[in-house]
Amino acid sequence: MRLAILGAGAVGGSVAELAGEYGHEVVALANSSQAAVADEDEEIDVESALERAASDEALGSSDPDRVFETDYDVLVEATPTTLGEAEPGFSHVERTLADDKHVVLANKGPVAERYEDVRALERESAGSVRFEAAVGGAIPVLSTIEDCTPQAVTAVRGVLNGTANFILTRMAAEGLEYEHVLAEAQDLGVAEADPTFDVDGTDAALKCVILANVLADGGFSLEDADVTGIQDVPPSALELAAEDGRTIRLVGEATREGVRVGPRLVPENGAMAVSGTRNIVQIQTRHAGDLYSSGRGAGGPETATAVLSDVGRL
Amino acid sequence: MRLAILGAGAVGGSVAELAGEYGHEVVALANSSQAAVADEDEEIDVESALERAASDEALGSSDPDRVFETDYDVLVEATPTTLGEAEPGFSHVERTLADDKHVVLANKGPVAERYEDVRALERESAGSVRFEAAVGGAIPVLSTIEDCTPQAVTAVRGVLNGTANFILTRMAAEGLEYEHVLAEAQDLGVAEADPTFDVDGTDAALKCVILANVLADGGFSLEDADVTGIQDVPPSALELAAEDGRTIRLVGEATREGVRVGPRLVPENGAMAVSGTRNIVQIQTRHAGDLYSSGRGAGGPETATAVLSDVGRL
Repeated sequence: MRLAILGAGAVGGSVAELAGEYGHEVVALANSSQAAVADEDEEIDVESALERAASDEALGSSDPDRVFETDYDVLVEATPTTLGEAEPGFSHVERTLADDKHVVLANKGPVAERYEDVRALERESAGSVRFEAAVGGAIPVLSTIEDCTPQAVTAVRGVLNGTANFILTRMAAEGLEYEHVLAEAQDLGVAEADPTFDVDGTDAALKCVILANVLADGGFSLEDADVTGIQDVPPSALELAAEDGRTIRLVGEATREGVRVGPRLVPENGAMAVSGTRNIVQIQTRHAGDLYSSGRGAGGPETATAVLSDVGRL
Repeated sequence: MRLAILGAGAVGGSVAELAGEYGHEVVALANSSQAAVADEDEEIDVESALERAASDEALGSSDPDRVFETDYDVLVEATPTTLGEAEPGFSHVERTLADDKHVVLANKGPVAERYEDVRALERESAGSVRFEAAVGGAIPVLSTIEDCTPQAVTAVRGVLNGTANFILTRMAAEGLEYEHVLAEAQDLGVAEADPTFDVDGTDAALKCVILANVLADGGFSLEDADVTGIQDVPPSALELAAEDGRTIRLVGEATREGVRVGPRLVPENGAMAVSGTRNIVQIQTRHAGDLYSSGRGAGGPETATAVLSDVGRL
C-alpha cells in the first residue's frame, strides 16, 4: 500500500521507518509545517527526511496540504490527539474519506470525540477507518474485539496508561511520594513535560471512550466519562493495600453503559497488576470467558506496529 | 455464511449452536455415522439434531458424505485430531478446497502433520484455510501473529494445555502426587478417560508445531518436536521450586528452528504461571516487545468462538 503519513513524531516517524519492512511505500510524510512528498510512482527518502527533521531542518520542501494530492492508498493520521472538535485530525479523516481512501488513526481524537460523525462519513465513502493504534499501543485490543464481534463482548477493563502505571509501580515499590516519582518519570522520558493527560486519567479515559463507542456503536465522548486520576494517591494507601495483598492501579472500564476511570485496588499478583509502563486489557466475552492481552502500550515502534497491522487488514 | 460442520462433539455442536448469533446458517451437521443435511436454501434445525444425538438417536438421516453436496460456503472441520496422514481430516480439507470453498479447522492434524500439503492445495483453490481454533482455544494467537505479520514474530512460547496445567496447579497447591490429581481431573471432566496426549505433551506439541509452521511457512510435524510430558514431575520438585519463588508449568516454545515442550521453572507470580485450565501465549516480536494473551484454551463454546472468528475473517 502507498502510505501518506501525517505526523512525523515518535509514531509517524516509526511508521515511516518500518513501512518498507511490511511491504509498503511512503509517498508523503508531513509534520505541522512541512511535508516530504514523492513524485508520482515514487516514494520518499524516509531516512533523509527524518534526519533533517531531527537536525531541526525542514522535513521537506512542500506544504503539508500537498499530502492529499499524492497518489496514496492509506492516510496514517498520527498528529497529536485533540479534544472537542478533534481538529485538525477530524478534517484529515473527512478529506481522506471524501477522496474514497482509507485512514488509519493513531490519533484518538476523532473516534473518542466524534465517533458517529466519523462512521457517517465512512458509510458514504469507499474508504475505511481503522484505529487499533489509538488504544493500547502494540496490544491487539480492537482487532480482538472485531474478531469476537462486538456483540459478543460485554465489557473491557484495562490498565491503559503506561505513565500512570509506572508511577504507581514505583510508588508501591519504594514508598515514595507521587511528586518525587513523577519527576523521576519525566527524567526517564516516561512522563511528558506536561504529564496532565496521563496522570489525571484523560488519556486512559479517551481510550475507554473509544472502546465504549465500539461496543455500543457510538454514543460516547470524553465528557461522558467518570474520571479520577492518580495525583492524590498517597504512599500510605499503597502500604495499606500491600498489607492486604493488593496494590493500586489506574483502571479503566468500558461497557455499553459508559466509562469509568480511576485508581482501583487489584490483587498484588493478579493479571491487572502489570508493572512499569506495560498495559493490560481484559476483554469479557459472552461465550469464551475473559481474554487478557498485555504488552507495551506506548512507544514509537510499538504503536507503529499497530498502525501497520491496521494497514494489513485493509 | 453457510456452514457445513463435520463433528458434532463439544466443538462442532457449539459452533452449530452459536452460528445463528453470529449471522451464519448451518446447512449440514455430521458426526462419523450420520448427517443432518438441509434442503437447498434452507438451514438445519440444530437444536433437534443435537437433542437426537444427545439421546443416542441418529443425528440425522443422511450419509455424512452428503455434507459436501450441500450449498455451503465454509466447511468447519471439527473431527478428532489424528496424526501422521491426518485422516480423515486431510481428505475433508482436500475435498473442500477442490470445490473452491473455504475450510476452518478446529482439528489440529492437517496443519500440524501436513502443513505444506494443505498450503499447496490452498494455492490451487479459490478457498482459504484458517485454523485459529487449533491453537489456544479462545485466545487469538494466530490472528495476532497474522496481524503482526509472521516475519515480525521471532518466537512464540506458551502454556497451551489446560489439563496439564490444572494438574500442575493442583499438585503445587496441595502437595499431592500426580496420579491422585490426575484422577481428580478426570472426575471433574478436565482430563479425558485416556489423558495421554494431554499429559505427555503431545497436545501442546501439536499446537507448537502449528505455530512453527506458521512462522517458518512449513517444515515441521510432530516428529520434529522435542517433547517431555508432566507424568514424572514429583511433588518434591514443586516444593523445591516454591522455596525459590518459582513453580513448574508445561511450556511449549516454537521458533523457525523448531519446537520444544517440557516442564519448565517459571516465576511463581509471573505471567506464565497461569492457574487451573487457563492457557497463555507469549508472542515475541521484533519491534513491539512481548505480547501476552491469556484466556480459556479449551471448551466447546470457547473453541467455537475461535472458529466463528475465522469465519468472520474469510
